[in-house]
Amino acid sequence: MRRQAARDGNRRPRSGLIQTGMPLSETQVIELLQSAGATRTDVCAGIGDDAAVLELGEGQQLISCVDAIVEGVHFPRDISATDIGWRALAVNLSDFAAMGAVPRWATLVLALPEAEEEWVRGFAQGFAEIAALHQVALVGGDTVRGQRMAAVQVMGTAKAGDSIMRSGANTGDDVWVSGTLGDAAAGLAVLQGELAVDNSHAGELIQKFLRPEPRLQLGQSLTRLASAAIDISDGLLTDAARLARASGVGMQLEIDRLPLSEVLGSATSHAQALNFAATGGDDYELLFTSPASRRDAIRTLIDEVNMSCTRIGSVLGGQTVTCVLESKPWIPSHTGFDHFALRGSS
Amino acid sequence: MRRQAARDGNRRPRSGLIQTGMPLSETQVIELLQSAGATRTDVCAGIGDDAAVLELGEGQQLISCVDAIVEGVHFPRDISATDIGWRALAVNLSDFAAMGAVPRWATLVLALPEAEEEWVRGFAQGFAEIAALHQVALVGGDTVRGQRMAAVQVMGTAKAGDSIMRSGANTGDDVWVSGTLGDAAAGLAVLQGELAVDNSHAGELIQKFLRPEPRLQLGQSLTRLASAAIDISDGLLTDAARLARASGVGMQLEIDRLPLSEVLGSATSHAQALNFAATGGDDYELLFTSPASRRDAIRTLIDEVNMSCTRIGSVLGGQTVTCVLESKPWIPSHTGFDHFALRGSS
Repeated sequence: MRRQAARDGNRRPRSGLIQTGMPLSETQVIELLQSAGATRTDVCAGIGDDAAVLELGEGQQLISCVDAIVEGVHFPRDISATDIGWRALAVNLSDFAAMGAVPRWATLVLALPEAEEEWVRGFAQGFAEIAALHQVALVGGDTVRGQRMAAVQVMGTAKAGDSIMRSGANTGDDVWVSGTLGDAAAGLAVLQGELAVDNSHAGELIQKFLRPEPRLQLGQSLTRLASAAIDISDGLLTDAARLARASGVGMQLEIDRLPLSEVLGSATSHAQALNFAATGGDDYELLFTSPASRRDAIRTLIDEVNMSCTRIGSVLGGQTVTCVLESKPWIPSHTGFDHFALRGSS
Repeated sequence: MRRQAARDGNRRPRSGLIQTGMPLSETQVIELLQSAGATRTDVCAGIGDDAAVLELGEGQQLISCVDAIVEGVHFPRDISATDIGWRALAVNLSDFAAMGAVPRWATLVLALPEAEEEWVRGFAQGFAEIAALHQVALVGGDTVRGQRMAAVQVMGTAKAGDSIMRSGANTGDDVWVSGTLGDAAAGLAVLQGELAVDNSHAGELIQKFLRPEPRLQLGQSLTRLASAAIDISDGLLTDAARLARASGVGMQLEIDRLPLSEVLGSATSHAQALNFAATGGDDYELLFTSPASRRDAIRTLIDEVNMSCTRIGSVLGGQTVTCVLESKPWIPSHTGFDHFALRGSS
């Protein structure tokens, strides 16, 4: 329930200010539903982190997350069924990566306006490609008629205490990010005709949007090094603010340090590239914090897993995430979710 | 993925006969998706039973099921949000009852055309009522915009080998059913104006449709007595055929033995009541098989859990489910799912 909750979290009154007769925001819906279950002592983390952490006994925990993607809201109408199948599982595996957990099983609820054979074959193919990469079995589900939507739940296990939560960041920690940022957002902008780039760049950027690669190996390697982690689905600044809020800390990010790909650097102006990197969504990279004393250990790990990570800031006291560029305050020209019309009103 | 698969399983060509360019049946969609996951040795039962059974090690198994209910398909448009909230969880807990498993946690994907406060409060209330009864915590989910739909996944644990599968029935076993049959189907027919009954009966029948009561305590007590079990969601004959098919057996059901409630007996003719009992859906009673040698143990159990169960037939060789009434062959005037226009084209 996390992604959409935060997406409109700033645009609506919170509960207590609910206006009778008005449609609720997603945040308010979730607040109403949070009380709908029984209280159990075996729930270590419920609604609010990247995944639920549930006590199985014998030093074992069940990790479970669910995310639904809807046509026209979370992906454009004209992308291929194969890419949608990949994405439906990928976004959930990315939550697992942020927990440092190992995915094992998935279920799928698929809504389709009409079960068209070619579309279903394509979806199954994309889902199968990424399921095979990460050894995830499809163990159940349901199919219903409706607007195209795929809700995937992934389940896996972790040793008790091994999961990386959003809430563990401490003042003085370093802030790190994996890979490069902004490529997927630029790719989506190209797909939607909002950004014109050279043909030689377009394909690579679009591919970064269409085929997010969950950072499972990195996340699993970070269980003993990171103090907190989140995956970047709605843009660096939005997700950094979520992690900071969950940890009860502030954060300063150095925008000149943001890792940019060569292709993004070549395709757009530097200022535009920084905007994509700071506020564009769909990166599915990991943002994590770690004590400064572990900087060398992180660098060793980066070599071992062959996955670039960049130190982009520090955890501070306070409650706000601020950005500096060349030591001066920096504000993005757009922020996160609202940037793209595609996602304007989920 | 089981319910809708079987609902249209008899009406469409199976795979191998797929007609290019034609919309697929639910069964065909599921067949295409079944290959979409990786193969894992820790999947004891995947798609096809009431729930998935997954190996956790240390003699423990994870039980997981997911069912989506859609407005206009699985429930009429005009029933209250509170009843829908109850139903969304109840139908999944009924799958758990059929496995003999203990539910612990649930997730919820809720699609809403508009998040209207009163509706969401009502839904949360109904969900909370049945969650509290069975101590199920809501640990995650997602909310999206779309046609009203609630997809609930329930997770719980069981000792390895304790789960009751559909596939364990043996020739010579008794066939039992819990509670009474046909009330919910009659209640739905009343709600839809298809059946006129006395006001004094209408309320009770409608209530049986609106508030299914999963037989969790009975199911858990049956783990050492039943050879196979299934919950009756789509009508006795439909679900009996599923159990028989999964077990590779046939079945003879004695229609004069079907347990009918007083209210159904008073509200309709005997012939109509038998039709509702044999083919109406939404009973959410348990159908189970057990060796004849355990008949006394079953009767003792019935007293202990204070839940009526009735022996209604026998497991035979062959592959068909046949019905007899007064020792003569009996055929219902309608069969299962197709009976109700409400569910005509999911």
